Amino acid sequence: MQRVCFLLKVRPERLTEYVDRHREVWPDMLAALSQTGWTNYSLFLRDDGLLVGYFETPSLEAALAGMADTEVNARWQAQMAPFFESLDGRRPDEAFLTLQEVFHLD
Amino acid sequence: MQRVCFLLKVRPERLTEYVDRHREVWPDMLAALSQTGWTNYSLFLRDDGLLVGYFETPSLEAALAGMADTEVNARWQAQMAPFFESLDGRRPDEAFLTLQEVFHLD
Repeated sequence: MQRVCFLLKVRPERLTEYVDRHREVWPDMLAALSQTGWTNYSLFLRDDGLLVGYFETPSLEAALAGMADTEVNARWQAQMAPFFESLDGRRPDEAFLTLQEVFHLD
Repeated sequence: MQRVCFLLKVRPERLTEYVDRHREVWPDMLAALSQTGWTNYSLFLRDDGLLVGYFETPSLEAALAGMADTEVNARWQAQMAPFFESLDGRRPDEAFLTLQEVFHLD
């Protein structure tokens, strides 16, 4: 399993709505994530909008490509894009910055 | 299980050494973490020194208190303190900022 940590920046003025939307992620979006290998997936938020994502997957490349192939991901990412800063026209899942793992203890 | 995500800031001029030190964390430090309920514990680093920690534990409070009671943690944290910014005299494990979990998918 690959452990992936990524960062995004939510617009401070849209934090509350972002949190609300993630209480009711569409069931078909959740199913697509599971089917494309996103497991133990959490999102954490700092007060200023810094968003940390963590998930485990057999292959980050396959997880991203798998989701990119789904129709539901295109709809979800289109709805999420306005919540984020600095996407430069990319979808949120294309823009995120993955961090280097420097330590792990099972 | 509680999923915990925390942030710290490593001094940019000490990044390489920080990474090196985490390739050889003392065995008694690893054992103390396991014994006090730190599981699936990873550290991730951004180029500028932003450090993201993620772990799972039955209780964050017990995990922190348990480590605080160990002699090895006092030694380890004393050695790590100079690597971090903005500790204001606290140990790294006293200074870290935990983030709110806003989404989870098993």
